[in-house]
Amino acid sequence: MLRTHTCGELRISEVNKQVTLTGWVQRTRDKGSLLWIDLRDRYGVTQLFLEEGKSDAHLLAVARKLGREYVVSVSGVVSERVSKNDKMPTGEIEIKITALEILNESKTPPFTIEENTDGGDDLRMKYRYLDLRRNPVRESLQLRHKMGQQTRIYLDGLNFIEVETPVLIKSTPEGARDFVVPSRMHNGEFYALPQSPQTFKQLLMVSGFDRYYQIVKCFRDEDLRADRQPEFTQIDCEMSFITQEDILSTFEGLVRHLFKTVKGIDIPAVPRMTYNDAMTHYGSDKPDTRFDMKFVEVNEVTKGKGFIVFDDAELVVGICAKGCAGYTRKQLDELTDFVKKPQIGAKGLIYIRCEANGTYKSSVDKFFDEIELAHIAQKFNAQPGDLLLLLAGEKEKTRKALGELRLLMGTQLGLRDKNKFSTLWVLDFPLLEWNEETQRFHAMHHPFTSPKREDMHLLETAPGSVRANAYDLVINGTEVGGGSIRIHDRPTQSLMFTHLGFSEEEAKKQFGFLMEAFEFGAPPHGGIAFGFDRLCSLFGGADSIRDFIAFPKNNAGRDVMIDSPSSISSEQLKELGISVND
Amino acid sequence: MLRTHTCGELRISEVNKQVTLTGWVQRTRDKGSLLWIDLRDRYGVTQLFLEEGKSDAHLLAVARKLGREYVVSVSGVVSERVSKNDKMPTGEIEIKITALEILNESKTPPFTIEENTDGGDDLRMKYRYLDLRRNPVRESLQLRHKMGQQTRIYLDGLNFIEVETPVLIKSTPEGARDFVVPSRMHNGEFYALPQSPQTFKQLLMVSGFDRYYQIVKCFRDEDLRADRQPEFTQIDCEMSFITQEDILSTFEGLVRHLFKTVKGIDIPAVPRMTYNDAMTHYGSDKPDTRFDMKFVEVNEVTKGKGFIVFDDAELVVGICAKGCAGYTRKQLDELTDFVKKPQIGAKGLIYIRCEANGTYKSSVDKFFDEIELAHIAQKFNAQPGDLLLLLAGEKEKTRKALGELRLLMGTQLGLRDKNKFSTLWVLDFPLLEWNEETQRFHAMHHPFTSPKREDMHLLETAPGSVRANAYDLVINGTEVGGGSIRIHDRPTQSLMFTHLGFSEEEAKKQFGFLMEAFEFGAPPHGGIAFGFDRLCSLFGGADSIRDFIAFPKNNAGRDVMIDSPSSISSEQLKELGISVND
Repeated sequence: MLRTHTCGELRISEVNKQVTLTGWVQRTRDKGSLLWIDLRDRYGVTQLFLEEGKSDAHLLAVARKLGREYVVSVSGVVSERVSKNDKMPTGEIEIKITALEILNESKTPPFTIEENTDGGDDLRMKYRYLDLRRNPVRESLQLRHKMGQQTRIYLDGLNFIEVETPVLIKSTPEGARDFVVPSRMHNGEFYALPQSPQTFKQLLMVSGFDRYYQIVKCFRDEDLRADRQPEFTQIDCEMSFITQEDILSTFEGLVRHLFKTVKGIDIPAVPRMTYNDAMTHYGSDKPDTRFDMKFVEVNEVTKGKGFIVFDDAELVVGICAKGCAGYTRKQLDELTDFVKKPQIGAKGLIYIRCEANGTYKSSVDKFFDEIELAHIAQKFNAQPGDLLLLLAGEKEKTRKALGELRLLMGTQLGLRDKNKFSTLWVLDFPLLEWNEETQRFHAMHHPFTSPKREDMHLLETAPGSVRANAYDLVINGTEVGGGSIRIHDRPTQSLMFTHLGFSEEEAKKQFGFLMEAFEFGAPPHGGIAFGFDRLCSLFGGADSIRDFIAFPKNNAGRDVMIDSPSSISSEQLKELGISVND
Repeated sequence: MLRTHTCGELRISEVNKQVTLTGWVQRTRDKGSLLWIDLRDRYGVTQLFLEEGKSDAHLLAVARKLGREYVVSVSGVVSERVSKNDKMPTGEIEIKITALEILNESKTPPFTIEENTDGGDDLRMKYRYLDLRRNPVRESLQLRHKMGQQTRIYLDGLNFIEVETPVLIKSTPEGARDFVVPSRMHNGEFYALPQSPQTFKQLLMVSGFDRYYQIVKCFRDEDLRADRQPEFTQIDCEMSFITQEDILSTFEGLVRHLFKTVKGIDIPAVPRMTYNDAMTHYGSDKPDTRFDMKFVEVNEVTKGKGFIVFDDAELVVGICAKGCAGYTRKQLDELTDFVKKPQIGAKGLIYIRCEANGTYKSSVDKFFDEIELAHIAQKFNAQPGDLLLLLAGEKEKTRKALGELRLLMGTQLGLRDKNKFSTLWVLDFPLLEWNEETQRFHAMHHPFTSPKREDMHLLETAPGSVRANAYDLVINGTEVGGGSIRIHDRPTQSLMFTHLGFSEEEAKKQFGFLMEAFEFGAPPHGGIAFGFDRLCSLFGGADSIRDFIAFPKNNAGRDVMIDSPSSISSEQLKELGISVND
């Protein structure tokens, strides 16, 4: 090594040692008589110094030429600092430079390489290799490394085998759009990049692999919403000879292991909630349970008072915002505007202030007197000082809208601390969901998910109410993992494809190999997949996954650093047997 | 779990325990009064039995219906076997069945699920999920898992960080053909799949990541020779602030760690050889050093005897095949035919038999008398009973041909035992190699490899003789890893591109981002990449990598199980803005 120590390593116990360090010049401070250099590498920062009159004049001259981000090799003697810095691990020492070599110069970086940078998003993406030098970004990727490491340690310890599944697979129209790869050896044919290794991991179960996992890249050619990436990473797992309970306990174990080893946090047992309860109480299949603010349904105590909005509503439901009775007219108007946004879709917002003096003030005072308002407030266990916010309308839409309002109130009340973690299993998802656009049922999870045996009889008569053996793991209101017990016999799988509107021919063409495999002794099996990028960003307390990916793409799916995608040569196109349309 | 134990777990100490096992019916033996079932899972095989008259009649009826590969759940009592089988870990016990449930039936598999199968390659590939049930294939993938696990343990222990680099990158004409991915959001533009994460790992060094690794899928759209796969896996590594010596010792350490932990073998320090020595002594840059049989050059003792083949040859060189003097005329003719094959390219083969009685018999007796032959034999330290095999001709071609002959003789003499391992570093590769087809120099390793400083002055005058800071790790005559110390400054990188025939514009278009990165403080760095599939197959003592890949493609790049590549819909093509040529 060109160094004897890293820049994060030296302590007071090493005083008088002769050392050589390498790294980047973070900054220099030239006081005339004394010149300090902060030298940085991945491991930390160490202070170096030269003294006018005492240090070699040539050394001083070289040091005075150093710019930010120059790469240098420095030899010297470890000395005790006069004024120690207890904020950095190397803060008790500094290096008295006796030799200094510039290993590489640097142009002035387009933004500062500091904890908080002055670079905008576009610039940071273009010079991603400089952005990666910044501590928070580097630490995010180090956290990711540790998450992967600990995931493997946990799963290896339970006899899981990591098996690599292929990246060049086959396009299937079901689900999201595939990225495809034209074949040169078979012109006119295409491989597809996997959206998940789903069918392969199921085949591995048919093969008897029993416990499989893989930390694996997956691909989805979707129009990118903020914080979606065309390539993303999953922790993909599958087990045989299990019940749903085995999957839940195994992967609850994984999550607890990660919290323990990566964050040093002992989390309690992961609570469970059915999909129906989640929708009823939180208006979401991924409720943020860092705070309570459960829905209260008040149809009974609000009807028949002449307020037509309530009387006509399928559902009247509200939340109690603790201590918000003092909200101003303006604040309440903002909340109303929020719920009336098209993506939220409510028609209006009703409020009831539980005043500190025990009286009530509401937007429906015309229809409800003090006693009636008190009666409603009682349903919420509201205390003086609280604010009740109510929506009314069609059940499903109203719940979703109130779910969004609940999150907003949670944020406004500071109840969504990124450094607090609340986990939840959501169970018993519906098997199918109706799609207005295609006017047919789609698999809510995917077509390989098994229906609950006790609901099978509803498949013909009430397909929408059939529950699946499907589950999601939710942390802080984000779905970080989801899975199911799979179908493992051909008749049930065929039935499922029929209900999803596949013709026998289509089903055979796309998944014939899997259905055939089910005829050669497929074991009962099930699994789960975690969104690794998202899981890492949650652990890192970040909103965006972007800094947990070394080289992310922008919202247009473009890597602006390497300038990709880009045109290819006409020879390449010709070899592939394809043309670009005009 | 649907089981209390696996099929590989029960021992004599568990006699009388009530257990439940699940697995596949390996075979049943019905002796009338007794019926045995071998139940198999990933962990082993356990024998089950039922007794006519004693066991429940219904159970017996169900058991008699069981076919091969049926999936069953069995409960029963662990009993001591009368006739024990010391060849299987569970051989001291058997399970007396008290309950039996068929979890899934199986059609008769198209080939036997045994150690050695009757299935041909095509059938095994089509039903890969059944082939994977066979012990040798499953064990190969378990070995692979262990290799990956131990690789990570070793590198994690040395502070390497695993960083995922992108899969959707940019096509570059240099090197092998890229697989490309048409962009839907940017019609007419394409991503490419990486042939290696080379530029990204170098950027990570520029970012200060210091020690990087990744076990990563790479892609090459090449015409597939036997045992090449379009997608393959690398252990990809890079380090900063190092010398070549640091790389060699770090990754020698990795290889020794893998031999120790995976194979239980302590291998000695890895010997080193220059590229020139390897070519001179073995005619190969990846010599199989499990056996000696070094080349001996005999121009001096063969010239001037009137044998024009020797006299005109740039090089006369041979090997001594120990104890082969008894080779028959037919055997010698076969060796001659071998070296004359077009892919070997020699014009003929000269032999000298060192007879047991101390005399010599050669194919050039017309030109060399006994004393002269003895003189030649002396150069080889040949003993009575040995056979000398000589080739003559142009230096490079002759060495390569003799290298092939040497390997053949090694095989014939049983010197290439798959369970013996001989490792070697080959160092000081040439920087450039002349390409007859393109009539220009190409980078032997890749364009980012640094020339040796002491050879830089030859770049203009004798580019072919400039040595690179490049190295390969060879095991048993197979290159399993290769790497180099990289260029880390823009002027040298530009110079290199110029010598490779890149115009300034081309270089900028393809690698502008890397050259620009070198201007912002790139540290000295270097690295290595190992072919993981090959490394695993070597450790597994196999010739082919195919069974160390769960779902390999055939030699036409096709996955015959899922039938990929395949056509895609016209809607997909339209969205991508491409057409398939007629």
